[in-house]
Amino acid sequence: MATASSDTAKALIAALDGPWHDIREEARSLLAGEQFAGDPALDYRAARERVLGQMRELATLDFVQRGYRTEHGGTGDPGGAVVGMEMLAYADLSLWVKAGVQWGLFGGAVENLGTERHRDYIDRLMSLDLLGCFAMTETGHGSDVARLETTAAYDAATQEFVVHSPTPSARKDYIGGAAEHARMAAVFAQLVVGGESQGVHCFLVPIRDAAGADLPGVTTSDCGLKGGLPGVDNGRIMFDHVRIPRENLLNRYADVAPDGTYSSDIDNPSRRFFTTLGTLVRGRVSVGGAAAAAARAALSIAARYALRRTQFVNPDTGEETLLLDYRMHQRRLLPLVARSYALAFAQNDLVGRMHKIQSGHASDPAEQRALEKRAAGLKAAQTRHATRAIQECREACGGAGYLTENRLVTLKADTDVFTTFEGDNVVLMQLVAKELLTGYAEEVRELDALGWVRFAATLASDVVRERSGVRQLIQTLRDRGGETVEEGDLSRRETQLKLLADREDYLVRTAAHRLRARAEETGPFEAFNNAQDHILEAGAAHIDRIVLEAYIEGLEGISDPEARDLAERLCDLYVYTVLEENRDWFIMHRFMSVERAKAVRRGVNELVSTLRPHALTLVEGLGVPESMLRAEILTQ
Amino acid sequence: MATASSDTAKALIAALDGPWHDIREEARSLLAGEQFAGDPALDYRAARERVLGQMRELATLDFVQRGYRTEHGGTGDPGGAVVGMEMLAYADLSLWVKAGVQWGLFGGAVENLGTERHRDYIDRLMSLDLLGCFAMTETGHGSDVARLETTAAYDAATQEFVVHSPTPSARKDYIGGAAEHARMAAVFAQLVVGGESQGVHCFLVPIRDAAGADLPGVTTSDCGLKGGLPGVDNGRIMFDHVRIPRENLLNRYADVAPDGTYSSDIDNPSRRFFTTLGTLVRGRVSVGGAAAAAARAALSIAARYALRRTQFVNPDTGEETLLLDYRMHQRRLLPLVARSYALAFAQNDLVGRMHKIQSGHASDPAEQRALEKRAAGLKAAQTRHATRAIQECREACGGAGYLTENRLVTLKADTDVFTTFEGDNVVLMQLVAKELLTGYAEEVRELDALGWVRFAATLASDVVRERSGVRQLIQTLRDRGGETVEEGDLSRRETQLKLLADREDYLVRTAAHRLRARAEETGPFEAFNNAQDHILEAGAAHIDRIVLEAYIEGLEGISDPEARDLAERLCDLYVYTVLEENRDWFIMHRFMSVERAKAVRRGVNELVSTLRPHALTLVEGLGVPESMLRAEILTQ
Repeated sequence: MATASSDTAKALIAALDGPWHDIREEARSLLAGEQFAGDPALDYRAARERVLGQMRELATLDFVQRGYRTEHGGTGDPGGAVVGMEMLAYADLSLWVKAGVQWGLFGGAVENLGTERHRDYIDRLMSLDLLGCFAMTETGHGSDVARLETTAAYDAATQEFVVHSPTPSARKDYIGGAAEHARMAAVFAQLVVGGESQGVHCFLVPIRDAAGADLPGVTTSDCGLKGGLPGVDNGRIMFDHVRIPRENLLNRYADVAPDGTYSSDIDNPSRRFFTTLGTLVRGRVSVGGAAAAAARAALSIAARYALRRTQFVNPDTGEETLLLDYRMHQRRLLPLVARSYALAFAQNDLVGRMHKIQSGHASDPAEQRALEKRAAGLKAAQTRHATRAIQECREACGGAGYLTENRLVTLKADTDVFTTFEGDNVVLMQLVAKELLTGYAEEVRELDALGWVRFAATLASDVVRERSGVRQLIQTLRDRGGETVEEGDLSRRETQLKLLADREDYLVRTAAHRLRARAEETGPFEAFNNAQDHILEAGAAHIDRIVLEAYIEGLEGISDPEARDLAERLCDLYVYTVLEENRDWFIMHRFMSVERAKAVRRGVNELVSTLRPHALTLVEGLGVPESMLRAEILTQ
Repeated sequence: MATASSDTAKALIAALDGPWHDIREEARSLLAGEQFAGDPALDYRAARERVLGQMRELATLDFVQRGYRTEHGGTGDPGGAVVGMEMLAYADLSLWVKAGVQWGLFGGAVENLGTERHRDYIDRLMSLDLLGCFAMTETGHGSDVARLETTAAYDAATQEFVVHSPTPSARKDYIGGAAEHARMAAVFAQLVVGGESQGVHCFLVPIRDAAGADLPGVTTSDCGLKGGLPGVDNGRIMFDHVRIPRENLLNRYADVAPDGTYSSDIDNPSRRFFTTLGTLVRGRVSVGGAAAAAARAALSIAARYALRRTQFVNPDTGEETLLLDYRMHQRRLLPLVARSYALAFAQNDLVGRMHKIQSGHASDPAEQRALEKRAAGLKAAQTRHATRAIQECREACGGAGYLTENRLVTLKADTDVFTTFEGDNVVLMQLVAKELLTGYAEEVRELDALGWVRFAATLASDVVRERSGVRQLIQTLRDRGGETVEEGDLSRRETQLKLLADREDYLVRTAAHRLRARAEETGPFEAFNNAQDHILEAGAAHIDRIVLEAYIEGLEGISDPEARDLAERLCDLYVYTVLEENRDWFIMHRFMSVERAKAVRRGVNELVSTLRPHALTLVEGLGVPESMLRAEILTQ
């Protein structure tokens, strides 16, 4: 159970837990034991064994079933599955990754890309009778999945696919489970029928026998030591004309008949490809959530330490000063706590949207696409936050922070790859921006040159922002924010929302202009590349805005008045921090006067100062049980 | 020898090597072999043994002697000692730290705080006949050395000091060498004579017998696993009334006579304390240098990879695009390369100043103090740069960057503590700012209230900047920079220098005002704490300015015209990056118009774009031999 020394903290925990409070509370008690913790003293081979043992224990709990449909033996709770698994991040990130590979990626591929004929696999993979891996990335291609080189050529004579790695760069690489434990791989490969390529599809390929030896034609190898995640057996796979039955194609969106006829309900190959990948959105949702959880754990350690540790005497009092009483220490940690609250609300919102779609309550392609955009952006934002926050926490704990016994270096090392896997952050933020620009282009596609100019002049209007999915509260605030921002009170949510929304609109609009103007001169790639920094900034601005919206909506759910008051002030701190980080932009683009920009800085200082007395409550509110922190400095 | 494919690259290497080109070239060839490399596959116990073996090999080379005076059997080349050791960072940072503890910290304490009676120790520690450690930090106090709790009470009856750890927080902590190898510790403790404390002094305390067992009264323990540096045996020491001979006080600045009479040539206890610590400046100089070296190694790996690795097809050409042809990738890496050049020149300048003072050619206390300020600031700046740059390099190499075989994660983990040890960066930057404010206070101490107001109005004047140590070239540029900055061409060094200097002046001046104004209301601590973020910013601005000065001076030494041209453009990139990072400040304080701020961003984009074709030359210029990179991704 979550540790809380006050009702206020309990109310904050419940708010951040959101609709999954019960699942989180159950996980806090189930996972608190030593048996699910990581053991950094183990070498990587022993760590892998330990994690596999923990997985077997997990398989007996109800964590796993949630992720699967009832007709497959699951309990059909995709949101609960993501949230429950996320809690593993407090215990050990290797365990979280390994569980995610088995039940999220491998299991998710079978569940979502497979059909009735693959159904037996689901039982086996849930119970760990079948250990699998997810073989998408290759040495030569990670972000550009469409260009994977592995081939799966259909041989109608034997009704088999021949899976093959034609070049060294076609080698499957970094694949969790491929080094030791996986017996089967979900392999993404170019499907070739009758000599013609049909694009990337997913195949189930047995890779090891029961004794763990590579099957004929399969050569696995070990990625060996990594920056962290010692309990995950990342490896490589080469295929030398490996034959698998025709039925091993996961054929939900496309199939090959015994005679070699290719068919698909989705005519457009590009749409088919993106539909296939889209079913895997749960992985991105999960990575962002786990990264944010790791950041909460690190902040819980560093902030609690800063409430115990003194250094230097205050000459005015003659007593040593607590670290958290220093202005800089407040400024280092409290804005990160605020962002953690913001992202927690945003993650709950994201999981809710995913749950709705994946529970079959919504199947609008536009909603699926919006979900993918949001998942991509929040994955990037949350993993970036984790990298920054954990680093700051490590440094804020000084030499103690560097000792493994205080956990921060393990959290840092384990999460370091989160900015890379399940989509490189730069590529993901580009995807977000591209979606924004597409939405924009649809609005203005019909305009002629003069229309563009006129359109560009209407900077304050609200053409870009998606209209779907905006809920009433936010809409009301937006409508109220109609006055010019300079006049608005910076502590009003309307003004805050308008500032972030205006920034997003402006960046998207001007990026679109720039792309269009340059594309005619230089070709689309040069135009894109020339504006890449601008485009990424637009993506980031979008995420800042939707995170604030989620925070505002989350506030509504807090009925405890003290908790609400603290969460409101922390929301201000989140906004002020975002404004401070981008104040050059706001001034340069005349969205903020110099005086207001100075007020923002003062505002951050005032907020950290007034929140300082409530630091413990705020940290407890993050919801990481003290028993799961496992930092020696907090026990001495 | 340094790898260079062109004369231009060779000229850049020579420029960055500075006056120590020969020493660096020698080290590049001596240290390139496998025997000095780290082996990440070893567990920490084996890694410690390996590093100790490497130390024994190093002890036979001339690396060690340079750091000691000729009368002590050294070759008396303090600058060469720092630079030669720095090159170890390319081989293995554990080795660098372990060597630094033995010959820099422990040896340096004996050499600089000891006298003739400690001379025999020098021979023994140089040859590794005596392994030592440097026991300053305690569990309770790291940054606040004056409040160390360990005591050394003089017992005139036996002519011994009794070294004691009176509380758990008095335990010596994180001490390199204390876990296994050290036989003797240079212990910083409160000297107590006749019941009266004389402040912190340094004592040589034997801690282990020849077999490695703790001596009576000494309890050592092991810090165990850390974030990195597995080859360094960090440990803890508790003293239980351990008796050492009177002569084991390192008595250069103070002594205790057999009868217990305390004497010192330095009357003021505070000055005595700071003089003692001041002799240890070489440690800070060294840490900054090694951090910058590690950043150069990481950038060499990431940039070379970005010149081999492609991802995504350019639709205009149909070919896959090299990572370094992406605008964002250029923006991620090239400004860090520019900053590495800038810091390399600044480090050479710093080492030169240290060399001059420590070779006895200068002994002005003001110069010593200026050296300490500069060493503190550049330590903070370079370790911060290393942390950011290596993280960026890791991410810029994607999944490959996370594999230990590609070295980046090891560089990150090993350097992570550099922002903490030899002075926490926040505390160091405060020290810099405090020195700046002290200089300022001396200038204006005599002014009355009206004088302050008038003084504050002369914002463009140049009161603050230290006048000593400014060399002719910079003075000339400063004199030329008299026009208002808005009119100046941003590509002119005069204008660049003036912008950075104006920022520093303004920040220091306003910080002084603010402190003075508030101190009367709230007491000095509250006043300081309230302005802490402002004060730290002033320190950072100072460092930005002196780094630019060092770069400008370094440029003068490049005679090869192509190398000079590239280094000049890279200097622009350094300046533009600093301006871009701080453009909110420049605009808000009216040192820059919005138009100019926009030009700065365009300038960064133009510079990275024009430098892109020269990327390999620039990276070779960093001077890390390809043979020392040891990244598998570069060999495939």
